Order: sequence, then C-alpha cells, then structure tokens
Amino acid sequence: MTAFFMPFQDTICALATPSGIGAIAVIRVSGPESFPIVEKLFPGKKLSAQPSHTIHFGTLRDSENSGLVDEVLVSLFKAPRSYTREDVIEISCHGSEYIIQKILRLLLREGARLARPGEFTERAFLSGQLDLAQAEAVADLIAADSEAAHRTALHQVRGGFSREIADLRQRLIEFASLIELELDFGEEDVEFAQRDDLRRLIAEIQAVLRPLIESFALGNVVKNGVPTVIAGKPNAGKSTLLNALLKEERAIVSEIPGTTRDVIEESLIYEGIRFRLIDTAGLRDTTDVIEALGVERTKQQLDKAAVIVYLFDAAETPVKELQILEKELQTRGRPYLLAANKVDKVSPEYLNSLIHSFPHSLIPLQANTGRGLDELLRNLAGFVKTDVQSATVVTNLRHYQHLLATSEALDRVSAGLQAGTTPDWLALDIRQALHHLGEITGQITTDDLLATIFSRFCIGK
Amino acid sequence: MTAFFMPFQDTICALATPSGIGAIAVIRVSGPESFPIVEKLFPGKKLSAQPSHTIHFGTLRDSENSGLVDEVLVSLFKAPRSYTREDVIEISCHGSEYIIQKILRLLLREGARLARPGEFTERAFLSGQLDLAQAEAVADLIAADSEAAHRTALHQVRGGFSREIADLRQRLIEFASLIELELDFGEEDVEFAQRDDLRRLIAEIQAVLRPLIESFALGNVVKNGVPTVIAGKPNAGKSTLLNALLKEERAIVSEIPGTTRDVIEESLIYEGIRFRLIDTAGLRDTTDVIEALGVERTKQQLDKAAVIVYLFDAAETPVKELQILEKELQTRGRPYLLAANKVDKVSPEYLNSLIHSFPHSLIPLQANTGRGLDELLRNLAGFVKTDVQSATVVTNLRHYQHLLATSEALDRVSAGLQAGTTPDWLALDIRQALHHLGEITGQITTDDLLATIFSRFCIGK
Repeated sequence: MTAFFMPFQDTICALATPSGIGAIAVIRVSGPESFPIVEKLFPGKKLSAQPSHTIHFGTLRDSENSGLVDEVLVSLFKAPRSYTREDVIEISCHGSEYIIQKILRLLLREGARLARPGEFTERAFLSGQLDLAQAEAVADLIAADSEAAHRTALHQVRGGFSREIADLRQRLIEFASLIELELDFGEEDVEFAQRDDLRRLIAEIQAVLRPLIESFALGNVVKNGVPTVIAGKPNAGKSTLLNALLKEERAIVSEIPGTTRDVIEESLIYEGIRFRLIDTAGLRDTTDVIEALGVERTKQQLDKAAVIVYLFDAAETPVKELQILEKELQTRGRPYLLAANKVDKVSPEYLNSLIHSFPHSLIPLQANTGRGLDELLRNLAGFVKTDVQSATVVTNLRHYQHLLATSEALDRVSAGLQAGTTPDWLALDIRQALHHLGEITGQITTDDLLATIFSRFCIGK
Repeated sequence: MTAFFMPFQDTICALATPSGIGAIAVIRVSGPESFPIVEKLFPGKKLSAQPSHTIHFGTLRDSENSGLVDEVLVSLFKAPRSYTREDVIEISCHGSEYIIQKILRLLLREGARLARPGEFTERAFLSGQLDLAQAEAVADLIAADSEAAHRTALHQVRGGFSREIADLRQRLIEFASLIELELDFGEEDVEFAQRDDLRRLIAEIQAVLRPLIESFALGNVVKNGVPTVIAGKPNAGKSTLLNALLKEERAIVSEIPGTTRDVIEESLIYEGIRFRLIDTAGLRDTTDVIEALGVERTKQQLDKAAVIVYLFDAAETPVKELQILEKELQTRGRPYLLAANKVDKVSPEYLNSLIHSFPHSLIPLQANTGRGLDELLRNLAGFVKTDVQSATVVTNLRHYQHLLATSEALDRVSAGLQAGTTPDWLALDIRQALHHLGEITGQITTDDLLATIFSRFCIGK
C-alpha cells in the first residue's frame, strides 16, 4: 500500500485544537518545508539540528520586522516518525484568537498553505501510516461520546477491522489468480482452481462477512446511541422516570468542569452505552394506550426505537390491557420492557401475579424514589451489551455497503459454481468481491472517494 | 521573591485546550507526583527515566483493567524547566470529549486533583517563575484580540512593566531604610536620609508614575477597544459607511477558517487597534443635529466615545451649521473627525472651502465607493497610535489603583518634607508607597488577592 506514496510538495498548517478560549492552542505544520518555514519564525534555535521528539521553548517572531508574537513551545517530529510520516512541527502557543491568527498568517507568508479538513489524516493514509478504514475511524474516535462508540472506533483506528478485511481479501486474491490463469489458457478447459476449495473458501469468507454485516445495525446504535422510547399514559410517571434517569447522568457530566457541551437531546449513558430518549408526546393525547400505539405519529416514534420501555401505573392498569399491549409490542420485533410504576400502591400478591404474567419483561418501579431504576437500566443495557463486547462492529455506512456488495458478489460466485459457470464469469464476480473489499481499506480508491471521506473531518486533523 | 516558594504537595491536572470538537486536546499535569501518576496510565515506557523536553508516543490505558483509552503523545517537562517549575506532563490525545473526560477521571483516580482556574499560572507565580503583574498579563494575553492589546499584554508577560515597578520600589526601599534608621534613634534628632535627596528621588519616581497612571485610560482603550461613535443625520450615509468599514474587516476575519468567533458587537480592527462602533440611534430621531447632540441618550453615547466621527452630507450641510457643531464637539474634549460624505455632489471649490474651514478635522468621503475610507481610518488610528507605541501601558485596573495610591502617598511625603514633618510620619507614607508598589508585582500579597486574580483565568492555565 505504501507503493503509491509520493512525498507531497507542499507544506500544510492548521489549528489542531478547538477554537475558543483556552490556556493553550496547538498549530500543526506538516510537509517537506516544515522546518525551514518554522525556523524563519523561531530565530532562537536551529530546529533542524535538533533530534526528533524534542520540545523547544522560545519566542516566535514576525520574520519581517522581528516583532514578538508569542512565547511558544515547538515540538519536533522528523519524518517518518510523525502522524503524516512527513516532517511535522507542533507550535504550542497561548490560546488567544489573535495569536493563533497571527501565527497562521506568518506560516502562510513563509510558504505553508492552510490544510483542508482531514488533510493531515489523508496524508497519513496516503503515506501508508493508516489504511482507509483506520483513517475514517479517526473521525469517529473524535466524535465518540460513549464508551462503546469509543471502544469500537479505537479498535478500528488500531487496525482491528482492517486486518480482518485484508486477511479475507488476501485469501480470495490467491484463488482469483488461479481462476485468472484458467482464463489465460482460454479454450483449453483446464482447471487450476479446485472448485471444491473455492466453495469452501467462499463459505468461510461469508461466515466472517455475515456477522460483520449484521453488526452494522448494532454499530449504528453504538455510534449514534440507542434510540429508546419511553411510552406510557400521562399519569404513569413518565417525566418522573425521565428526571430520575437523567439526574444521575447529568451529575456525572457536570463533575468535570470545562468538558461538558450543549445537550441537543435528552440522552443518558449507562455502562458505556448512550441511550437517546425519544419523546413520545403522541401518547399523551389519548388515554387509550392501544389506540395511541396505533396513532400515526406515535407509530413513527416507536419505529425509530431500538428499545421500547412501556411505563404504566401498576395500580390502574389491568393485566388484560397489558396482555393486549404486549402482543402489540411483540409485533414490532424490538426488545421492550414493561415498567410497572408505583408498585408501592399495590399489594405484594398483585405484584407477584404481574411478575408471573410477564416473566421476561416486567420491571417493578417506584420512579419517585428511584427504586427499580438500576434493574431497568441493567435490562436496557442487556439488550445491547452482549453484542458490543464481541470483537469487530461495523459502524460505517460505506463499509457496510461494501461488505454487502462483497457478500452479494460471492453469492453469485457460489451460484455460478453450482451451475457450472465458465471461469470468465466466476472471475468477474471474484474481481467484484475483491474490489469492494479493497475499497474498504483503501487499497482501491478514487480521488472523489478520498475527498468525500476527509471532508467529514475537522480542520487540523 | 523565590524565598517563600515551597513545593506543593498535590498534583493538579486540567484540560489546557478549549473544549469542543478539535483534532487534538492537551491535558496538563503539574506537581511532584506528575510522573508516578502518568506512568501508571502509560505502561509502555518509564517516563521518569527520559530526559526533559522529550515527547513519547504510546498507549494510555486504564490502570485497573488495562483497557485501552487512546493513543497519545506525552511531553515531559522536568522541574524546574517547566511553566510551573514543577514536574509537568502534557498529554496530547484525540480531541474527543469522551477521551478527555476518561483521562481526567483516571488522573484523579491515581491521585491528581482538578486544577482551579488559573492554578497553573498561580503556581508559576508562587514558584517565582512569574511575578504577579506578569501572571495577570497571561490572562490578558489570551484574551487579547487586537495587535495593540496583544503587544501590551505580551510586554507585561515578559516583565517589562514589572521591571519598571521593581526598580522604583528598590530605590525607595533604600531611602526607607535610612528613614527607619532615624526612627531607631528616636529622640536623638539625627538625619541619616538627606531630605534633598529624598525630594529628588520622589520627583523622579513621580515622573515615572504619572505617565503610567495616565496611560491607563489608553490602556483600557487598548484592552477593550476604542469606543467610536459615528454620529450624523439619517440621510448622511452612516449605514453605508458602517458597511464599507465592516465589510473589509469581516473579509479578513473569515480568511482563516476555524479561528473566528461570534461577534458580539460591531467592531473593526485597523492597524492593530480595535474600534468598537457604538450605535447612535438617538441621532436618528431629530434632524436638528445640535439639538440631537443635546438629547440625553445621545449625550450618554457620546460620553462613552473615545473618538467621535461626525458624518454629514456635504451637499446639504451649511458651513455655519458645521461651525456650531464643531464648537459643541470641542467642548467634549475628545478627538473628533468631520466626515464630509457625498463629496462627488459638490463643486471642487466648495469642497476646498470646507477643507479650509476645518483644516484639522475634515475628511472628504464617498462612502458608497469607499473613497476616503483609508484616510478616515488613518486619522482614527492616529488618535490612538502614537500613544500605544510608547513603552509601557497600564491596562489593569488593580495596577492603576495601586499606582495612584503610590503617587498619593508620595505626594504626602513631599508635603511632609515641605512642612518639616517628623521621620515617623514620613516613614509611614513611604511604607504605604512601598506597600502599593509591592502589591502590583506580588512582593506583597494576600491569599484573597491571589484567589481573586486567578479566578479570572480559564481552567488549564
């Protein structure tokens, strides 16, 4: 993959830390001219004569008038021991908008240009430091806001997913070359590639592909949070439950000042999984729950849910009604919980009968005191958790589509083998499968694809 | 001043870069346990065995379960070669909120505590790395949003202001000790301190103090921008002028993506000076300008102005009216410009007569084409600029108050000398003067004062 690496002619720079008020800011410079450019602004020391991975304190000055811009630390990373494998210098300056702009302007004047979003990571990919799936995961890693999303992205950045794909591809390539050999012999009707071996190999590859493909639904949930609908009649105690659930989480978030951010929707993180709580205002309009479940906009919200919690007042909801409700929920094919609120208002005997009627789904609750919350959360996490722990999870739509296309091409190969198709048709489908696997890791790319992928990044990465 | 430095027992940590989405984030750790604490989370390398000012790539892991948190760079600064003069480690991680929180939590678990706002700089002060005026200027440096504000703050961070104050204080101390000696001899009526020398010294010190005190009005303008009122009748072309002035500046700001921030008020920066354009809606209510200038709310706005630009339609404003107006403006004692708009609509002869009538204040303009804008801005900058270039400018209210109190105490000494006051009274006032000078650089401080000063800082600095 490093074969097509060619050092870039230009040197790029960008602010690598978020803009805004902070103690320090880091400006990153990468490219063949990094040292000459920064040396013009850092007159105190011959930076290129210093060893890689060292830090130097000094004054950054305007090269035209020697005007002092800031006292800075410069960190040196000499090629290829850097993120991009080029010469990289990081300038750590005071976190002032004015200073940042001034330093960027001076870098531009000395010959650097502003980096496009993701261009540092793009260079890391083009230099062979990262493959494409790894590079893409860097953006996911930065955006990760729960333990599960973080773990999945980090696993990919470190190449876990890429290795599996590259392995599959390598084994398929060996077979493909045998099939292509048959084509070279054209009319002679020789078979270099054992059809049985090919069949076995395809079965093996499919056995790896299918769980990956299936993991995407989960991966999406991991990356974007688990859409969770808490449904129920108005008097069931829904907002008490929501507050009880959110209060604890908010306290955790606000524990560390300076690191929180604006919350756009109500969400809570439990055991590393983010649950996005979706408002079911639709259910408030009618006290007939079954009817409400049929109301169009409620349906839409329930359809968005990956998990449904149906909250009811234990003292006011007949078992009969719950049974009808459960059937309705079962038709949706999503995990659900029946949360019996206000259990302090019913007799222990009645509560027992409820638990017996719904042994797998009933959670006794007292939302106002917090009793039962833990069990509710444990059960919610249980729906997701077992799966997240399993090795590789596909979180990227592009990867998912290519995995799907690979699998389909291999299905065509299998069908072709069954029907005794000629090697040229088999070769075509195998090439398709190889192409799609190659697109995932970037062994096959187009400029357009790269532009699309890296434009998702923030500037400075 | 390093005399009262005592290494701190605890190790502090904080995010040093702004929160928000960015490529990287930097977490700073300072204190005697920095190395042992970070080493527990960075199993790959014995950091304490590495030289200062080196950078190490590796994985940051949860010390309890070895779970991978991120791939990071750690920068090592060994005491006393660091910002705080303590052992400092900077952890450069991916700019994800999740990762930042996770690393901070791990640092806390291993024995660090979260830094208060400004605590790193407070330690830099307490360790003698910076004096108090320098430390305070660090916050100003970060907040500086124009070249002038930046230059002034940087001058202070580098100790320019502090040196002047320390020099004055040193010379006064020598005298004070002689006077105190006289007190020791009590009734004996000896004079160790030559009264003439003291008089000369006080005159010298006052000659340094007065310009510093006077520079505060300017310093305030430098730090907070120059309040500039553009007044004029509704049809004079005020909004055209405002747009023409702002458009150019906005283009400059938007040149560098990712570094702009929300604009709260209309302001423009010219030759490094920020001009805050204050709305004079009050002037729109009446077409009688003289009357408008007398209207209470217009008065308030003009009173806020450091500079006034009066814009008028050259074709529709009689010289007589302008003469009355100029007298009114002169009574305010602020620099002003008379901007003659739409000069293309008057004859060259009339324009010449206008220029002759107001030789020092008239600027011919054509706001819609931009003609004359440069001259207007040059003249505005001229009001401020000559002063900013002069060495030290006081920008800090606290410093201003202490300088004023010093000057007043020295005035009392002078008066006492004149009146032949006894040494005990002279000593009292000299001690007062010394006290106030000492408070500026932090040679004399209280915990309350430090808490107040450093709470202005952002966390991580």
